[in-house]
Amino acid sequence: MDPKLLEKEYAVWAEVQAARGVDVEAVKAALKAQRIETPSWGYGNSGTRFKVFRAPGAARTVEERIADAATVHRFTGVCPTVAIHIPWDRTDDYAALAAFAREQGVAIGAVNPNLFQDDEYRLGSVTHHDPAVRRKAVEHMLECVAIAGQVGSDLLSLWFADGTNYPGQGHIRRRRVWLEESLAEVYRAMPPGMRMLIEYKFFEPAWYHTDLPDWGTALTVAQALGPQAQVLVDTGHHPQGTNIPHIVALLLHEGRLGGFHFNDRKYADDDLIAGSVDPFQLFLIYNELVDAAHDPATAETARRVAFMVDQSHNIEPKIPAMIRTVMNIQAAYAKALLVDRQALARAQAEGDVLGAAGVLRDAFETDVRPLLARVRQEMGLDPDPLAAYLRSGIQQRLEAERAGPGTGWGG
Amino acid sequence: MDPKLLEKEYAVWAEVQAARGVDVEAVKAALKAQRIETPSWGYGNSGTRFKVFRAPGAARTVEERIADAATVHRFTGVCPTVAIHIPWDRTDDYAALAAFAREQGVAIGAVNPNLFQDDEYRLGSVTHHDPAVRRKAVEHMLECVAIAGQVGSDLLSLWFADGTNYPGQGHIRRRRVWLEESLAEVYRAMPPGMRMLIEYKFFEPAWYHTDLPDWGTALTVAQALGPQAQVLVDTGHHPQGTNIPHIVALLLHEGRLGGFHFNDRKYADDDLIAGSVDPFQLFLIYNELVDAAHDPATAETARRVAFMVDQSHNIEPKIPAMIRTVMNIQAAYAKALLVDRQALARAQAEGDVLGAAGVLRDAFETDVRPLLARVRQEMGLDPDPLAAYLRSGIQQRLEAERAGPGTGWGG
Amino acid sequence: MDPKLLEKEYAVWAEVQAARGVDVEAVKAALKAQRIETPSWGYGNSGTRFKVFRAPGAARTVEERIADAATVHRFTGVCPTVAIHIPWDRTDDYAALAAFAREQGVAIGAVNPNLFQDDEYRLGSVTHHDPAVRRKAVEHMLECVAIAGQVGSDLLSLWFADGTNYPGQGHIRRRRVWLEESLAEVYRAMPPGMRMLIEYKFFEPAWYHTDLPDWGTALTVAQALGPQAQVLVDTGHHPQGTNIPHIVALLLHEGRLGGFHFNDRKYADDDLIAGSVDPFQLFLIYNELVDAAHDPATAETARRVAFMVDQSHNIEPKIPAMIRTVMNIQAAYAKALLVDRQALARAQAEGDVLGAAGVLRDAFETDVRPLLARVRQEMGLDPDPLAAYLRSGIQQRLEAERAGPGTGWGG
Amino acid sequence: MDPKLLEKEYAVWAEVQAARGVDVEAVKAALKAQRIETPSWGYGNSGTRFKVFRAPGAARTVEERIADAATVHRFTGVCPTVAIHIPWDRTDDYAALAAFAREQGVAIGAVNPNLFQDDEYRLGSVTHHDPAVRRKAVEHMLECVAIAGQVGSDLLSLWFADGTNYPGQGHIRRRRVWLEESLAEVYRAMPPGMRMLIEYKFFEPAWYHTDLPDWGTALTVAQALGPQAQVLVDTGHHPQGTNIPHIVALLLHEGRLGGFHFNDRKYADDDLIAGSVDPFQLFLIYNELVDAAHDPATAETARRVAFMVDQSHNIEPKIPAMIRTVMNIQAAYAKALLVDRQALARAQAEGDVLGAAGVLRDAFETDVRPLLARVRQEMGLDPDPLAAYLRSGIQQRLEAERAGPGTGWGG
Repeated sequence: MDPKLLEKEYAVWAEVQAARGVDVEAVKAALKAQRIETPSWGYGNSGTRFKVFRAPGAARTVEERIADAATVHRFTGVCPTVAIHIPWDRTDDYAALAAFAREQGVAIGAVNPNLFQDDEYRLGSVTHHDPAVRRKAVEHMLECVAIAGQVGSDLLSLWFADGTNYPGQGHIRRRRVWLEESLAEVYRAMPPGMRMLIEYKFFEPAWYHTDLPDWGTALTVAQALGPQAQVLVDTGHHPQGTNIPHIVALLLHEGRLGGFHFNDRKYADDDLIAGSVDPFQLFLIYNELVDAAHDPATAETARRVAFMVDQSHNIEPKIPAMIRTVMNIQAAYAKALLVDRQALARAQAEGDVLGAAGVLRDAFETDVRPLLARVRQEMGLDPDPLAAYLRSGIQQRLEAERAGPGTGWGG
Repeated sequence: MDPKLLEKEYAVWAEVQAARGVDVEAVKAALKAQRIETPSWGYGNSGTRFKVFRAPGAARTVEERIADAATVHRFTGVCPTVAIHIPWDRTDDYAALAAFAREQGVAIGAVNPNLFQDDEYRLGSVTHHDPAVRRKAVEHMLECVAIAGQVGSDLLSLWFADGTNYPGQGHIRRRRVWLEESLAEVYRAMPPGMRMLIEYKFFEPAWYHTDLPDWGTALTVAQALGPQAQVLVDTGHHPQGTNIPHIVALLLHEGRLGGFHFNDRKYADDDLIAGSVDPFQLFLIYNELVDAAHDPATAETARRVAFMVDQSHNIEPKIPAMIRTVMNIQAAYAKALLVDRQALARAQAEGDVLGAAGVLRDAFETDVRPLLARVRQEMGLDPDPLAAYLRSGIQQRLEAERAGPGTGWGG
Repeated sequence: MDPKLLEKEYAVWAEVQAARGVDVEAVKAALKAQRIETPSWGYGNSGTRFKVFRAPGAARTVEERIADAATVHRFTGVCPTVAIHIPWDRTDDYAALAAFAREQGVAIGAVNPNLFQDDEYRLGSVTHHDPAVRRKAVEHMLECVAIAGQVGSDLLSLWFADGTNYPGQGHIRRRRVWLEESLAEVYRAMPPGMRMLIEYKFFEPAWYHTDLPDWGTALTVAQALGPQAQVLVDTGHHPQGTNIPHIVALLLHEGRLGGFHFNDRKYADDDLIAGSVDPFQLFLIYNELVDAAHDPATAETARRVAFMVDQSHNIEPKIPAMIRTVMNIQAAYAKALLVDRQALARAQAEGDVLGAAGVLRDAFETDVRPLLARVRQEMGLDPDPLAAYLRSGIQQRLEAERAGPGTGWGG
Repeated sequence: MDPKLLEKEYAVWAEVQAARGVDVEAVKAALKAQRIETPSWGYGNSGTRFKVFRAPGAARTVEERIADAATVHRFTGVCPTVAIHIPWDRTDDYAALAAFAREQGVAIGAVNPNLFQDDEYRLGSVTHHDPAVRRKAVEHMLECVAIAGQVGSDLLSLWFADGTNYPGQGHIRRRRVWLEESLAEVYRAMPPGMRMLIEYKFFEPAWYHTDLPDWGTALTVAQALGPQAQVLVDTGHHPQGTNIPHIVALLLHEGRLGGFHFNDRKYADDDLIAGSVDPFQLFLIYNELVDAAHDPATAETARRVAFMVDQSHNIEPKIPAMIRTVMNIQAAYAKALLVDRQALARAQAEGDVLGAAGVLRDAFETDVRPLLARVRQEMGLDPDPLAAYLRSGIQQRLEAERAGPGTGWGG
């Protein structure tokens, strides 16, 4: 859009918001302070069980993956860390890797062990009936704790594919005991400032029972471990119809919301771009977070929540998809910041059902693109990061430079 | 909002849209021509199996229900018809009822027979094993065809609660034959211009099998009957995850999309306010409709689609809930009208996944409240119909006037 | 069947089982000791939001409901208690009610308060924004604690319809605090031997969020209250696809499985006859229970689990439906008792997926009707309680005697 | 089990059935005539998007896959055909392949083209926006028609991965037109006796919309093509809660039920062993088939239904898993044959809900293992084909002989 028109649009936008009582400067400050972590594995090839299509220009090495994360940060300004996955991102010298990331302009965030791709894990890792396999899994997590220390990360992010495909295949309660035992050893190895985030998933790749299927299971494991263990909410890991904002609120209430893996889905763990299927839900999640940030009972928990992306861009180009993801998450947060919380509290206190719902709807209906464009300009960025990236010629360069197979998820 | 600011907001809004290539006048014209039919039963009490809460001021008689529908039309300008339900809206003189409606400023729309509240229907109506019960059901539908003629309606809207609760309870294929036979007799009684809209529902109140559970079943029945039979899509009547815009597209392709019962849901047939749970989906439905309206292969079918509301406002005031519903549907249509169809077609033709998705997203992100406010002003209405109604004192008057039990769903 | 053939069938059946290593006498002893509690409200009229069909002979008063429960016990031998619901079963003299029950041959079991049918509860009971409404709800639960004392029951069974229909309608975390506060007062009023069972439900009658939607929420509330609070699993209250046996195992592991509300469903909370839609799942639930009963870590929790029925027989006769329910639950338990646990443990320890699954399948495939017929004969009962009831003439007598409206769910 | 005890068990079993009015000899004859087709790709490696675990002894070549199918037939006696998948099973000389199969004791059944693993299919095959890609897809299907002729098969089995991941990515109705056009060309190339079976799938690998998501879509495509096109029901391809027996009944009513891909699932398209999660549903499917076989309106359609298996044995050994599958399908059919159809019809005609459901339940509760053991013995087979296979030493031999990577799904 013509810059003058963009400016004019924002001026009226801000005037309207001010008239509605919004402190626009405070909203802008909050948006500049937003942080979203992108995953190294989001820059390499990925796919479904039917086919992994190779994306032209996709990153092949850990350095390329970190470089791409840094590119996303350069265009968006809110993605200063990148999650790594071991062994896909394994290297001989993690201090050097951290230095490389710093040179690129990012830091290394959560460390994610892989407990599902070795042949020994066919029937499970931390819940496997064979103690040797559980030992191997624990050792790998201990290695990741050490790596986190070397790269300066304080987050250990755990997802387990463990489960069974048929009734009777495993002894459910015994597997639960093994799960607690395995994690207890890892927990004890963590330094004081480190947090263990325990992810749950309703199903896949196990088809009868998954050892950690829901937030309640993850929470009780975290309770058994101690205060440094928290729950990680992947927005695609729930049964159909689940009220995820409610789960977010409950975990905040319990002081155990550790972080998110953002993505969107229509059916299962589709791993689509966050906010691409149900943008209203993403707004409602951020609405709970903004609310909790202002409540003394939950503010400390809310402050430490790790906002991470975990998606699988099977058919779309990687870096553009990640930039679009970040933009969608920014929009959700921006709208949540615009909620008139006094009016909301008033309507709730009066039992005014339509009025209260209307307050949220008003915020969601607001077009926050003018606001976000302004915020980016004030951060020295292009107001439209996706268009700017597509114009930059980077994608064409990467497609020309990068050929041949790589490491990671899709090889 | 201050009228001057509202005007200023709209002026910039229109300038931005024009810069994006939107023909704003054409969009406004389309919005003025939009039609939404509200149901008489939406103005009386309703509830769940656990409790019907009485809403203060809820309509008690068919005249009050029609008067309330007329009130909604006066504030929104796009609801000139009201659906009736027999026997809830039964009267001695249907011509007089039609005249009463006209005086109120509305006309009578779809006629809906009730085939589930008489004791004989315990095990079904048109698929009951007893021919006498099927006879009774057919006679009631024939009565409704006659009533439609008397009130000047050309729509017979059919929903059946028929189904079974246990495997084996009924013979599924035989019930299907009875269904076709019953409807064939009704079909033959319809005058040439009348349409029969056949609704389907995934489940409830039958818990094992529902005789008309999905659009495919409804379509094959319509095929067996003839061209005046079409399918009615209730947006709350699908399995979780169903792509309703896809069904809309398929029924348009088949020339059999007859109409909608709009509402929203998170779980089952929740009958919430349209667009209150998943506003993006409602937009995507209208996106298919706008697209089809411009395609010669589907334009005629699209032109005749009946847009009706079917909701159950269990805890919120009736008229305000209906006005909010209409506003949400208007917003969805307005956003669909803003889709840049040339850019969309271009991106689709190039296999530009993110670009194509971005075109839809851009339209959805647009705040159409300034546009709709302007449209209403040009129609001589208040720019905010819900606020205007709440200010009008009507609700208080109705709550004072209306006491004692009524007829209809919740009595 | 001819008694001699029945006897012959059982003899071979027992021989086959013995050859498989089953201790048939122990299995029979366990089956004789099985206990299933039926609900008073299961003997009165019930229905869906669309219609409550009156069942001929349905109980109209608390005395008739208790008498019917006693009838079911007389024919089945394993249903010595009946749950009551206040105020549907309210009376002036609870000691007299208990005495009446004893005369009929049963005792009063769990006491269930009603927190959803008074007008004040339109927007909630224990989570209502108005302290006066929460007060009323607490008082009613305190009354139920007192009633339990008077009728000799040690179970308070709590289900709440509380929730919201629209995003923003309520403040989710504040409602959670109110929930805990309300229950804490009731908890403190309970005598030492009494248990509070907290039920959860995924949705209905609230359509956006339910304050107690899943076992994790119920568990954390129970944790906040103390050891006398446990979780109640209603088998119809989960999202589609949920692995209920897994939840049972987890709650046993946590020492918080308090009881069941048995029923079956295909879609939502359909409240069909237990085991009528998915008999294999009911078997798998009992498989976890039998396993836990033999494990020192869980035996005490397992021993105290309350097995209760909660169904809605909308179209079928009440007493026969309840007898069929009991028979289905007996069959599930019988099959779980036949599982070769040594073979199962061996297969699990060897990672023999098909072998382990086959052990469960072998038990499930076994026809336990000859076994149950023999167990009943040894208990002095008819081998086929449903056929015996239908032959008894009781149903015809009740249909003749009972006319006119009653109290309770469906009036 | 001891052969004498087995014989004794069967003798009493048969006596009991005869007393119930079952024509045991007719049932045995039907079971001997049952036919189940296994898929070549079920004998090679397969997995999830997270990992393909290599199964020791898994088939690596088309010859090994056919040999394994023949092994399953040798032990079960009811699997005389094997489906092939092109290009996984591509060969230079299809006549030789057919001859090889005949030597092994089986024939080649349905031919399945692969339209999802070439890079060109990233955005679709028959619904791709690029005519060149659609052309390629059509050519491949025409090749498969030719192959079918060469191997003596009269079944073309079509599954498409086509769909989109994001709203707007594709033009839904235009893709539908391309789908019809593509298939029309293939349809015209089929010789008179050949049938085209069109499979549908709710989702995966496309995450927003699938071009053929449900039976209604597949049916309307088949209608557009002609009478040689029918619908293929994969039991894992439906939304949660779907009543599959109802769909089977409807497709029989329409004369368009072409065949099955049997498997079971708890969540999505889990591709587990048929009958391993919900054995009652598999019985209810066969109940519809047995019923339709005796109805002149549907007998011809029922007679031609192709019963095929499509599963993914990710963690269990291939041949044993397939034998178990066949045993489960036999059990479902056997129980359906035992349904007392006269008693069922009587109860249905009397509105006896519990009685009718009881008739089905009685059949399902029956242990058919003695019957099937006897049937197998009379066919010259071991009464327990799984145990016999495991005893045979074949598995050990295959594991020793087969090493190194192969062709097919999982390489």
